[in-house]
Amino acid sequence: MKIDINQRILSAHEAKTAQNKETLAAKRIVTINLMGSPGAGKTSLLESVMALLSPALRVAVIEGDLFTTKDAERVAALGIPAVQINTRGACHLDGSMIEGALAQLALDEIDLLIIENIGNLVCPAEFDLGEDFRLCLLSVTEGEDKISKYPLMFKDANAVVLNKVDLLPYVDFALEQFYQDLTLLNPKATIFELSCRTAAGLAELAEWIKQCVAAKRQEIAPVVIHGKE
Amino acid sequence: MKIDINQRILSAHEAKTAQNKETLAAKRIVTINLMGSPGAGKTSLLESVMALLSPALRVAVIEGDLFTTKDAERVAALGIPAVQINTRGACHLDGSMIEGALAQLALDEIDLLIIENIGNLVCPAEFDLGEDFRLCLLSVTEGEDKISKYPLMFKDANAVVLNKVDLLPYVDFALEQFYQDLTLLNPKATIFELSCRTAAGLAELAEWIKQCVAAKRQEIAPVVIHGKE
Repeated sequence: MKIDINQRILSAHEAKTAQNKETLAAKRIVTINLMGSPGAGKTSLLESVMALLSPALRVAVIEGDLFTTKDAERVAALGIPAVQINTRGACHLDGSMIEGALAQLALDEIDLLIIENIGNLVCPAEFDLGEDFRLCLLSVTEGEDKISKYPLMFKDANAVVLNKVDLLPYVDFALEQFYQDLTLLNPKATIFELSCRTAAGLAELAEWIKQCVAAKRQEIAPVVIHGKE
Repeated sequence: MKIDINQRILSAHEAKTAQNKETLAAKRIVTINLMGSPGAGKTSLLESVMALLSPALRVAVIEGDLFTTKDAERVAALGIPAVQINTRGACHLDGSMIEGALAQLALDEIDLLIIENIGNLVCPAEFDLGEDFRLCLLSVTEGEDKISKYPLMFKDANAVVLNKVDLLPYVDFALEQFYQDLTLLNPKATIFELSCRTAAGLAELAEWIKQCVAAKRQEIAPVVIHGKE
């Protein structure tokens, strides 16, 4: 019975996600799903990296939050189109929510869509939002054991940002163990050490994002203008 | 339809929780539900405060984790009875899981049961585990905005621990805003500033826990030995 219920919820979500993927591909929009704990630094990362991406790339952001509009306001303050989804207490974003947010964006004017998920290392990992890339944050203050404790979050990440490395001297974070566990769990992930405070790693992350966008847009069939149109 | 499903799941959980509460009350065990983000420092807090509680109080711990037994091992290393619940990916503990864990503990030998929930600021807040007290952790590295962003977690806390205050000089944490938001949301919460590194606040927290246990055990009817027994 439990399985039936889960499958029904999942397949409704999956149907919406498949539809969102088509919408995004038709507009040649590349999508990143940004995930991490509460306070890992997701919004700060967006604020910091944005100047290295925009306006060369036309970026838009969907912000997930339980109740507030704080994060969308921070992103909008940079002049970036931002839509807030309030889940009213729900622990992850899903296909229907993304559909609603897409309807509020000028899709013809976007190259890169970043979806900042709810601050949560558990539930968001289970919900494909139709993204092309998963970018997962872990801050050094959370501890290196989070890789093995929350493997679903990190095993499918295209890139993992180890954030707040400026705090490494003040915390007990076993850097070698972090690399060992992450590489074992997810050998394909690109790993960045980053600090929004010192700007360490920001340029490298921005470059990776640009390469992701370029690679994906080559994959997506370019719009062919037929003679008759 | 959605509401029906939720209600069915919730009431199964609630029935188990009511039963667990009876079991715990019959044994005069006081229970604390310890919650917070991944890496907020829940297990470290347990390790640090335990020496101030035990053996004067006979403490046992239930550890919630998705997959690993790391946390229970850390607690057991202190000589404290510890049972690990692995949720296999689920984002919170529930009544059935607690029932299973209670069956593995020598309930006649416990005064205080601490349940360390899954590292998650969202889902655990919605599930009463039959606890007498809720103790919620927020670390300064997570940011003061988490109070307003995750209000369900903090609004019913009996005490909130602001953890890792030794890192305050190195992070942008608006202490005044934290107190203002938390006091507005939950005026009854006792607030502790704490650091496991410097031991600041540990004695005060231990004293609060002892007072909670004493107060609750007075409430719970003492075992009356009848003449005939």
